[in-house]
Amino acid sequence: MFEQRVRTTAVRERIGARVRVAGWLMTIRSLSKVGFLVLRDGWGTLQVVVTPAQLERLQQQRAGPGSVLVVEGVARDGPNETVELGEATVEVLEAIAEPLPVPLGRGLANAKLPTQLDHAPTVLRDPKRRAVLRVAAASVEGFRRTLGAEGFTEIHTPRLVATATESGANVFEVKYFEQTAYLAQSPQLYKQIMVGVFERVFEVGPVFRAEPHATVRHLAEYLSLDVEMGFIASHLEVAAMLGHVLRGMVEHLGHACATELEQLGVVMPAIPPTLPRVEFVQARAMIAGAGIGPEHAPDLAPAEEKWLGQWAHREHGSDVLLVTGYPMSKRPFYTHPAAEPAGASASFDLLLRGTELVTGGQRLHRYADVLAAIDAMGTPRETLAGYLEAFRYGMPPHGGFAIGLERFVAQLVGLDNIRQARAFPRDTTRLHP
Amino acid sequence: MFEQRVRTTAVRERIGARVRVAGWLMTIRSLSKVGFLVLRDGWGTLQVVVTPAQLERLQQQRAGPGSVLVVEGVARDGPNETVELGEATVEVLEAIAEPLPVPLGRGLANAKLPTQLDHAPTVLRDPKRRAVLRVAAASVEGFRRTLGAEGFTEIHTPRLVATATESGANVFEVKYFEQTAYLAQSPQLYKQIMVGVFERVFEVGPVFRAEPHATVRHLAEYLSLDVEMGFIASHLEVAAMLGHVLRGMVEHLGHACATELEQLGVVMPAIPPTLPRVEFVQARAMIAGAGIGPEHAPDLAPAEEKWLGQWAHREHGSDVLLVTGYPMSKRPFYTHPAAEPAGASASFDLLLRGTELVTGGQRLHRYADVLAAIDAMGTPRETLAGYLEAFRYGMPPHGGFAIGLERFVAQLVGLDNIRQARAFPRDTTRLHP
Repeated sequence: MFEQRVRTTAVRERIGARVRVAGWLMTIRSLSKVGFLVLRDGWGTLQVVVTPAQLERLQQQRAGPGSVLVVEGVARDGPNETVELGEATVEVLEAIAEPLPVPLGRGLANAKLPTQLDHAPTVLRDPKRRAVLRVAAASVEGFRRTLGAEGFTEIHTPRLVATATESGANVFEVKYFEQTAYLAQSPQLYKQIMVGVFERVFEVGPVFRAEPHATVRHLAEYLSLDVEMGFIASHLEVAAMLGHVLRGMVEHLGHACATELEQLGVVMPAIPPTLPRVEFVQARAMIAGAGIGPEHAPDLAPAEEKWLGQWAHREHGSDVLLVTGYPMSKRPFYTHPAAEPAGASASFDLLLRGTELVTGGQRLHRYADVLAAIDAMGTPRETLAGYLEAFRYGMPPHGGFAIGLERFVAQLVGLDNIRQARAFPRDTTRLHP
Repeated sequence: MFEQRVRTTAVRERIGARVRVAGWLMTIRSLSKVGFLVLRDGWGTLQVVVTPAQLERLQQQRAGPGSVLVVEGVARDGPNETVELGEATVEVLEAIAEPLPVPLGRGLANAKLPTQLDHAPTVLRDPKRRAVLRVAAASVEGFRRTLGAEGFTEIHTPRLVATATESGANVFEVKYFEQTAYLAQSPQLYKQIMVGVFERVFEVGPVFRAEPHATVRHLAEYLSLDVEMGFIASHLEVAAMLGHVLRGMVEHLGHACATELEQLGVVMPAIPPTLPRVEFVQARAMIAGAGIGPEHAPDLAPAEEKWLGQWAHREHGSDVLLVTGYPMSKRPFYTHPAAEPAGASASFDLLLRGTELVTGGQRLHRYADVLAAIDAMGTPRETLAGYLEAFRYGMPPHGGFAIGLERFVAQLVGLDNIRQARAFPRDTTRLHP
C-alpha cells in the first residue's frame, strides 16, 4: 500500500503524474463547490483538492484532523508557486474524530508553554515545532562532520559515575546496586583522559544538572557537544577550533535545513574567520565606561553579556565574541592559568548574540599541577584515581570546550525558552511526558 | 611548537623531508651502536632511530615509556615496508619515570581483564585496545550515514523518565528533586511517539539496565542504536531496513577503519542483500531434528542460537540470520501480532554469527489495541499518558529495531567479553574508573 508512495516534498518533481502520498490530515477547508485537505508527512505538507462528496465521506467516517490517510492524485501547480494534488482518491487508514488537545498551526501560539510541553507528543507534529528539532539534528550533524574532518574521534563515556564531575552541588544521585552513583554533569574528566588515547576527541551525549532554579535557560537534562584536543599551543588554539566548528555547524545547517530555517525566519549568525576577542579585565573596563556595571566583579552578569554582544556586532560585525582571561577563582579546578596577568585563567567563554553559549580553555596537564589543584579543593585523591592515572603517565598540553545544543538552537532560532529547543524537556518539576 | 607537526600516519607521504611529530614514547630498544624509539600519537605509531648518546640523555632526564615527546627527523623507508625517522632530535615535554601499571603491547595480554579495566585510562592507549574503540566510533558513523541517506532524522529523547520503559524490573532509580525518576532502559516509547512527528527517526544514546547478573554479554550502561519507521507494510520491511543498515555499517567500516580492522584481524561478516530468515516454529523443529534442544520452548537458548548461526552460514553463506514469529508471550506489550500463526508476533531477532544482536518488529499502532495491551499488563493508563496521546491522535503502521553497539563490536572483532568493547564499562560492581 505504501510501496510507490512519494514524500510530499518530492511531488514537485512529478508534475503531471499520478502519485501516491501518505500522512496525517492537518486541516480541512470546505467551499461551496470544492474542498481542500492539507496533508502532512514526515517531511512537509501538501494541499489536496477534493470534492464536496469526498468531504462528506470523510465526515461519515469520522475522519477529522489527525487522521492517517493515503491519498492518490495528479500532481499539478497550485497557488503561490505551491504544488497540489487534483483528481484525488482518499483512503482513511486511521480515523480520528476528537480534536487535538492543542491546535497546531496558527492556533498553537495561543496555548501557554506548559500546555504545549504537556502535549508534546502531538504538539511536536506542528511543522514549526518540528522544524526546530530538525535544526537541532542538523546542528549536531554539522558539529560531527566538522570535527571528523579534523581528525577527531567520537567517544562514548559513562553517564553513571562514582563522583560528581564539576562539583558536589547540583548532581543527581542514583541507587546503583549496592553503591551510590551519580549522573554525569559533563564528560569533562573522561574526555581529558581520552586525549591520552586519541589526542582529538568529541562526544555528543546527555548531561544532567540538578539545578534547583527554574529559568528560561536551564534544563535538568541537556545535550552536551564536547570537544577536547591535545598538543595545543594555548587556549587560543582551542578557541580557533571552536570558531571553525561553529562555522561548520552553520554552514551545514544552510545546506541541510534551508526550508526549516526559512520557515522559522532564522537570520544566520555572522561568525568571522577570526573570532573577535576581548580580555575579561578589558571587558569590565568597557562595561564600567558604558555605565552598565562595576569595573571590578569576578564574572559577567546577563545584562553585561548582552551589552558586550551589541558591542561586538557594532565594532566587529560579529554575532559572536570571545571573552578570555576570566579570573581563576571562578573557573573549575582543572583550568590552566594564563601566562599573565596573575590570577587570570587560560580559558574563555563565547557569547552568541550576547548570551553565553560555550565555555572552554586550556587544562592543567602536569601531574603535579593536577594533584595540587585537587588537594586545594579538599577532594580526596582516591576519588579521582582514574583521572589522576592519565596524568601520572604522561599528558600533553590540551584543552577543549562544550556547547549546549539547546542553547545553540534557542539562540539561533530566537526561542524565548530553552524548553522549546528540546522534544521532551526536563526541569525541577517536569518529568512528563 | 606543534604548528608544523604531522601525524605519524602522514609521514609516509613525506619521505626525504624533515618532519616534526609529537606523541607518547611507547618502547625503547637499545643496541650497541644505535637505539630505537617507538612513538605513538593519536593515529598511529612510528619508529625513530636515535644514537646511544640520545638514549643516555633520555635516561638522564628520567624519560621512560609514557613520556610526552616532540621529535624531528628525516622521513625514510624503514624495514618491512614501514617508514621511520632518522637524524632525529628529541625533546622531552613530560618525563615519565615510573613504569605503566599495566604494560601495553604484547605484555597486555598477560594482565587479567579486571586489572585492564581498572587501569583503562592508560590501557586504552594500547594500539589494539584503541583500535576497538575506533571501530566502535566508525560503526556508529556508518549507522547514522546510512539512515540519514534514507530520510531518517536523529532525535534526542530523555534519559530521565517517570516510568520504567520495558518493565518494572532492572531499572535504576534516581532521586529527582521532590520526585522519583528512572533511567531509561530504552528510548522505545519516545521513538514511537516521534514516528508521529518525523515518520523515520533514529537515536544513538546510552541506556541503562540494572541487570543483577554479571555475564560476558551484559552491561549496566550501553549505547543503543535505535531506529523506528512509519508507514510500513510489515515487520519484514523493518527487517529489510536492518539489513541495509548493517551492510552500511560494515561498508563504512571498510573505508574508515581499514588499518584498525587489519590490526585486529577482523573477518568482515557476510550480510547478503536479502537476509536469510527462519520462522521461530521452523527453527525449533530444526533444532529438535538436530538433537540440540526440545521442539517446544518459548525462546531460544544460546546453544540453539549458535547452532542456527552455523546453519545459516552453511546453508546460506550468511553470518546473519533473521528469526521471525517469536511467541507473543515472550515479547513486550507494544509488539504487533503476526497475521499467522495464532500466538506468533510480527517481530524478529537477528543473530550475528549465532548470537542475538538485534531485536525488532512491528508495533501496535491502533489506539484501542495499545489501550488493551496496557490494560492486560495491569499498568495504570495514566502512567503512560504521553505515549497514549500519540496513538489517540493517529499513528500509522510502524516498527523498528535496536542494535546494541558493544555487542555489535564484540561480535565483529571477536572479543571474549563485551566489557572490552567499551572504554569505561559499568556492571554490578564496577563504577570506576
